[in-house]
Amino acid sequence: MELRNKLFLGTFVHSKALDELEYLHNAAVCVDTTGTIVAVEVDCDEPRAREIVLPGLGWDGAEVEVVKAKEGQFFFPGFIDTHLHASQYPNIGIFGKSTLLDWLNTYTFPLEASLADPAKARRVYTRVIRKTLSHGTTCAAYYATIDVPSTNLLADLCLSHGQRALVGRVCMDQLSPDYYRDASPDASLADTRASIAHILTADPTMSLVRPIITPRFAPACSLPLMRQLGALAHETSLPIQTHISENKSEIALVQSLFPRSATGAPDNSYATVYDAAGLLTDKTILAHAVHLTEAEADLVRARGAKVSHCPCSNSAITSGAARVRWLLDRGIGCGLGTDMSGGYSPSVLEAARQAALVSRHVVLGADGRGEGEEREKLSVEEVLFLATRGGAEVVGLEGRVGGFGVGLEWDAQLVGLGLVGEDGEVGPEEEEGDVDVFGWESWPERVAKWLYNGDDRNTKRVWVKGRLVHQRK
Amino acid sequence: MELRNKLFLGTFVHSKALDELEYLHNAAVCVDTTGTIVAVEVDCDEPRAREIVLPGLGWDGAEVEVVKAKEGQFFFPGFIDTHLHASQYPNIGIFGKSTLLDWLNTYTFPLEASLADPAKARRVYTRVIRKTLSHGTTCAAYYATIDVPSTNLLADLCLSHGQRALVGRVCMDQLSPDYYRDASPDASLADTRASIAHILTADPTMSLVRPIITPRFAPACSLPLMRQLGALAHETSLPIQTHISENKSEIALVQSLFPRSATGAPDNSYATVYDAAGLLTDKTILAHAVHLTEAEADLVRARGAKVSHCPCSNSAITSGAARVRWLLDRGIGCGLGTDMSGGYSPSVLEAARQAALVSRHVVLGADGRGEGEEREKLSVEEVLFLATRGGAEVVGLEGRVGGFGVGLEWDAQLVGLGLVGEDGEVGPEEEEGDVDVFGWESWPERVAKWLYNGDDRNTKRVWVKGRLVHQRK
Repeated sequence: MELRNKLFLGTFVHSKALDELEYLHNAAVCVDTTGTIVAVEVDCDEPRAREIVLPGLGWDGAEVEVVKAKEGQFFFPGFIDTHLHASQYPNIGIFGKSTLLDWLNTYTFPLEASLADPAKARRVYTRVIRKTLSHGTTCAAYYATIDVPSTNLLADLCLSHGQRALVGRVCMDQLSPDYYRDASPDASLADTRASIAHILTADPTMSLVRPIITPRFAPACSLPLMRQLGALAHETSLPIQTHISENKSEIALVQSLFPRSATGAPDNSYATVYDAAGLLTDKTILAHAVHLTEAEADLVRARGAKVSHCPCSNSAITSGAARVRWLLDRGIGCGLGTDMSGGYSPSVLEAARQAALVSRHVVLGADGRGEGEEREKLSVEEVLFLATRGGAEVVGLEGRVGGFGVGLEWDAQLVGLGLVGEDGEVGPEEEEGDVDVFGWESWPERVAKWLYNGDDRNTKRVWVKGRLVHQRK
Repeated sequence: MELRNKLFLGTFVHSKALDELEYLHNAAVCVDTTGTIVAVEVDCDEPRAREIVLPGLGWDGAEVEVVKAKEGQFFFPGFIDTHLHASQYPNIGIFGKSTLLDWLNTYTFPLEASLADPAKARRVYTRVIRKTLSHGTTCAAYYATIDVPSTNLLADLCLSHGQRALVGRVCMDQLSPDYYRDASPDASLADTRASIAHILTADPTMSLVRPIITPRFAPACSLPLMRQLGALAHETSLPIQTHISENKSEIALVQSLFPRSATGAPDNSYATVYDAAGLLTDKTILAHAVHLTEAEADLVRARGAKVSHCPCSNSAITSGAARVRWLLDRGIGCGLGTDMSGGYSPSVLEAARQAALVSRHVVLGADGRGEGEEREKLSVEEVLFLATRGGAEVVGLEGRVGGFGVGLEWDAQLVGLGLVGEDGEVGPEEEEGDVDVFGWESWPERVAKWLYNGDDRNTKRVWVKGRLVHQRK
């Protein structure tokens, strides 16, 4: 599909810093045919853009596609979901009272295994891509399954639907059911290489989709497998994604499975096990990190690995309340993950909302009734940073997506909120959403209303790399 | 408006016990012109209903209105919101990093005071009724403001929109700003009586709307005022609503404001202060109850007062994590409150979802990383009980609403979930929602999906007392 040069006009909101949103009003953003932002001008309406900005870019104004945000609407960077299992999408909301290890066996492995059926995989993966795009997720770090053809299909579908993605074939050669396990470390590595090769053939420059090496988590991987995957990461410079320190039983399991005598590492902490296998790199995404020790945080920081915070999941399956401030204080980059289907929601906005709420439970401390550190609390601005720029850093796309600036690619959503009339009713178009604006709210208040009650209805249009990939009817 | 006899056909789901949902498939429910359920038959399709059930009721089948749930849809009892401030609706989502006492002064009192403007009050109250109805709230326990005319307007609007409600003029004669405070206990009482009289004139049998005596919370009420309101409750047998033990600073404030020397009570606990004023009755709704002591729980139980659990609010403004299991174990009736705008959402379904999640934080205990009591965890079934039958008990309507049974009134919602096609797409009608059903899910799994991802789009139609009060376009 041939893209045209585009001129976006209106209000643009994005993170300037962890605790600061920048509001660009009456602004113009120009996006070229490669999907790259080539101009950002404030105090610039359409006539001025046509008079000054477009000629400066050497663009023919007659051929430019103009997209205007309506009064009250705003452009916001696309969300980055730094951790989710595409294969588990049909199970969101279904977890009962389980916790991690029984949840895997009861709900998760049977579903993942069933996606070796190509028709089922196509149905589920199509749906998860369409669904997450509709929620403004322009980039997702996906776990697929152990099955190569359907993992490749997921990557193909991301490409055809235009969603930026990291797609990983899941590696697991132990402690999972017979019906769903790699036959050996070598078989796991061969399948991983096959999936990497497919994805690199489909998108040779990794312009949209890239492979990611995906050891499920330490308990499901033998040490030889982890070491081979670490070597593969070193050989290919590809990113890695896995889970760490989600749940206390899981941590105890890791410590019993990987004693120092086996790894040769200085201790048997969860992070050390990964490090000993060469899996802690500056391109590693560690999901959860709820219960990291200070020493593990030091190690993660030293290696430059990043954390995907998954508050919906951590609350739902009773894993714990991750201390995001504590991680950030230690210089560890953090983004947000929906972690479907440990997490119940496809929405990064919901993950941001829950990140704010869970941070308050961290403040509350013991039994939710004590007195924790007030500064653990995350603000509206901070959780939206995590959902965009923070996520970009976690998936290795900082400086490429996550905000509005010359040189960044146009991964964005147009957000609209409902306006309440004088009679207390809302108009037919505005009714498409749960956020009610009365008109007197400041811009930060409108954004707070969006964070706390927004949903896919407020995401009117979504672009990835300049291409329109979702539009509400 | 004249109501017709109605025949509802399809699947009906409601709480049979705290931890048990009952699924009535292929069932028929007959609702007479007073809005009362007069028959519930299972294994009964329309022909059978027409052949056996309607004649048995003496109904002319030609004049009966038939409402059929489509395949996959189900009827569910209307939600009961046991605690919300209608006047604060415009502020939902706007609370920053505040906690209770600064939140009141910064955000809440200025907005409430501004609703003395009748046009603004009409706009806000119309919107909150329409909004909560659209989320399936068939009954709401509203706080209005200190202003009598606009409080009366809220009651009138509930009546005209057909929402069941308890409507309270807020009483507060101390520790609030000069611009928003009752002039004296006598003035507060006179205004309260005026509002009660208005509501009893508008709905003399309290068939839909009833007044509720509403001391804001102890810190904002002098002892003389609380005593007069307690006497008024005794005189009128009307229900009472107030807040208790929401936040630790608030509790300390109560203890300093109401020493034993002033109340003459055996101690200065929050519950004891209310009890000393005659405000703890079996018709009292206590919102929050996050930090109750064992002795207070005993007292609340002894008086038969009930608790409105407000998890969204308690997390949002960092009040604490209420121990619902602990309250239930002590025989205290509990329901759910959105507590707008301490709570950020108009949806009781969201309150139920957060009740489930917050109960997991109670399990997690210290810092969200300890080991609490596993049994504190609330199930899907339990939080939906709280949202319906539990709420009915809290607002004094047990045996009248909250479930499906002969003699109960028809306060109900029709729920529909999205069905994913074989191609991974959803149909145009089904797209009106965020819940995706693939078709293989059991009924309990569908209900879990609704709990965790449902919103107002899934609530297709809403009835109160047999009258259709909301329908999605």
